[in-house]
Amino acid sequence: MNNQNTFALKGDICFSLDQKHLSVMENAYVVCEDGLCAGVYRELPGRFRGIPCTDTGGALITPGFTDLHLHAPQYSFRGMHMDLELLDWLNTVTFPEEAKYADLDYAKRAYQIFTEDLKNSPTTRACIFGTLHAEATELLMELTEKTGIKAYVGKVNMDRNGPASLQEESAKSSAEATVRWLEETAGKYRNVRPILTPRFIPSCSDELMRELSSIQKAYRLPVQSHLSENPGETAWVRELCPDADFYGDAYDRFGLFGGGQCPTIMAHCVYSSDQEIALMKKRGVYVAHCPQSNTNLSSGIAPVRKFLEEGLCVGLGTDIAGGHSLSMLRAAADAVQVSKLRWRLTDNTQKALTFDEAFYLATMGGGSFFGKVGSFLDGYEFDALILDDSRFPHPQPLTARERLERLAYLDDGGCVAGKYVAGVKLF
Amino acid sequence: MNNQNTFALKGDICFSLDQKHLSVMENAYVVCEDGLCAGVYRELPGRFRGIPCTDTGGALITPGFTDLHLHAPQYSFRGMHMDLELLDWLNTVTFPEEAKYADLDYAKRAYQIFTEDLKNSPTTRACIFGTLHAEATELLMELTEKTGIKAYVGKVNMDRNGPASLQEESAKSSAEATVRWLEETAGKYRNVRPILTPRFIPSCSDELMRELSSIQKAYRLPVQSHLSENPGETAWVRELCPDADFYGDAYDRFGLFGGGQCPTIMAHCVYSSDQEIALMKKRGVYVAHCPQSNTNLSSGIAPVRKFLEEGLCVGLGTDIAGGHSLSMLRAAADAVQVSKLRWRLTDNTQKALTFDEAFYLATMGGGSFFGKVGSFLDGYEFDALILDDSRFPHPQPLTARERLERLAYLDDGGCVAGKYVAGVKLF
Repeated sequence: MNNQNTFALKGDICFSLDQKHLSVMENAYVVCEDGLCAGVYRELPGRFRGIPCTDTGGALITPGFTDLHLHAPQYSFRGMHMDLELLDWLNTVTFPEEAKYADLDYAKRAYQIFTEDLKNSPTTRACIFGTLHAEATELLMELTEKTGIKAYVGKVNMDRNGPASLQEESAKSSAEATVRWLEETAGKYRNVRPILTPRFIPSCSDELMRELSSIQKAYRLPVQSHLSENPGETAWVRELCPDADFYGDAYDRFGLFGGGQCPTIMAHCVYSSDQEIALMKKRGVYVAHCPQSNTNLSSGIAPVRKFLEEGLCVGLGTDIAGGHSLSMLRAAADAVQVSKLRWRLTDNTQKALTFDEAFYLATMGGGSFFGKVGSFLDGYEFDALILDDSRFPHPQPLTARERLERLAYLDDGGCVAGKYVAGVKLF
Repeated sequence: MNNQNTFALKGDICFSLDQKHLSVMENAYVVCEDGLCAGVYRELPGRFRGIPCTDTGGALITPGFTDLHLHAPQYSFRGMHMDLELLDWLNTVTFPEEAKYADLDYAKRAYQIFTEDLKNSPTTRACIFGTLHAEATELLMELTEKTGIKAYVGKVNMDRNGPASLQEESAKSSAEATVRWLEETAGKYRNVRPILTPRFIPSCSDELMRELSSIQKAYRLPVQSHLSENPGETAWVRELCPDADFYGDAYDRFGLFGGGQCPTIMAHCVYSSDQEIALMKKRGVYVAHCPQSNTNLSSGIAPVRKFLEEGLCVGLGTDIAGGHSLSMLRAAADAVQVSKLRWRLTDNTQKALTFDEAFYLATMGGGSFFGKVGSFLDGYEFDALILDDSRFPHPQPLTARERLERLAYLDDGGCVAGKYVAGVKLF
């Protein structure tokens, strides 16, 4: 057979079989058939003989990475003003910057830089916050679409506790703008889909949450927001929502906390109570663990081991620009690092993450929000990276497993030499 | 005047005035006269009119960075096998790799890679561990000399608790090899000097420590070693040295813990007691704070704020390969990051480091081990970097201060466009 939609990549292939097991096959083939994975082989079987094959010359080949949480408009100030905690950082740095995206020229300049870097990053799937501005968010969707990456992109909703320059006039106008945005962008893109994006409880009145709930049901949208990130923030939510049993309940009361018809991602969950964790499990809510951001904003370290033991859905996020690096390889290394500090400083009954576990989270863990994504197991969508680590010479022979771990620690975003999403070659 | 040894660099100049104050002058000049800093100016004063001036076109210009602690032979496995704690990591990964440096061909391959990367890194001064092999260490000194970086390099001493493949036969043979190494390399280098390097207490018998003490006095050598890094290690030292009042005392009993004639660097100090800190202060012992390594090896987070309040000498180290990155810019960002987690998780009375403080530690703090090094204040040795951050475009205007902080977070080692050490241009 010689179907044009069937091809192979040859190299040192690494992918997760499940949470605990990383499969590594050196000098092997991974086959894509009609956009799906059709096996990893030491030798191509007869039925694939003669298909086009790209020999990467010993590069690492991995599934694509899923960035479950990042803010596109914040990319412009990543790595700056990092001496502030969450709420001060939002008011002093983040909100004034996001307000600039009312200006479409500014948004275009900024989002072009962001999407160009996103395209070249290890990310193949992403869940992205825009700003409250519908037009700028539509522009972000267009530019993201052009990268070939598959993404959910959200126009942010916020009708309280913001500055005049970055707040919607009312719950009603926020909802109306959201509907307009949904209608205007409906069916426009192949790779990009909308996602409902209440910023976080402090930014959203009860009335707005009710409006969003209606929109969620009408349009069957997934939801992304923030949860239990920081002590100051969680205390504020307790004040704002005295009736909610816990932070997550403040979303759940409006039907915006997972469940079959409402796939939901909650970023951070550093301070989630047992009750909150139990509800997340029940509702299938995804945790977007953002280790770099939780460090930079002095938030703390999320109990990821506990999430895994409880069987929650967990992936990783860069949380640009609480996090400063767009590299999901780096996010995997960061997840290992902070889990060690948590084991040492907070709770030595919860073992640190292994690299294999962190790699799983960054690929299969988060990828599952998009379906069968993030592995080379049969039938998974063919998201693949060719990773070139030849810039890092070494005097001794290294296994592919060693090179993969090393690259997670050393990646500067320049290692992606090839990228495929659902079988489509981006470069 | 037009002395060939006098020249200026023009750009956005950032340097520490002291621990708290970062000076930033955009579009300014820093002058080098006979290897020393001769002022930073908005306009060149009359006496410098006509001197050669390199206009960097708006690049950042900073003092060079001092890496107070790293292991050259471990560079080959940075970012690998990071799922182990210190003592297991030493036995499983580090000692077997260091044993390979008995083979000079291997050492040459490895050290060429290391010194090439060191040359291109932001480091202008370094305190480097070799292995116990005198010949390989001499090779490391030769290759380091060629980079133009100024460095102390140490042949490691270890006569107990190592594997057969990486242990000296006796205290006496270790001492003899050290003296031979000192005699053979004496006066050979312009930039590189020897430093006495007992690996750490568990690797050095009392007899060896006595021998090293004699050598230290005879040759007036500085000393570098490890101190109070990890709970398992500190417990072991208590067993090994029941007579020592604390870990540092086990060095001090042999006169290898600072004092006027014995400048000493101790890496880590994560678990230093008040008594140990008091003695370090009294003896002028330098702390090499290695945040990335202390994270990777699950050691913990050193109380740097306390060291600064107590008035200790503190600098930063990459601790290759407990740390994986050779970038001292990254080390500054890492120091800020872990100090936030320490504030949040361990002791909220000790404020996190600011970026300005971390920058000070990475430049002036560690630099002072080499004399007047690490600033552009008058009379400081002219160690300077031209840092090109143009690979990181941004939609908004940024101040030089913002760009500097951003570069610390984003640096991948590729930003050093020019480098001067004591007035000599390396590239």
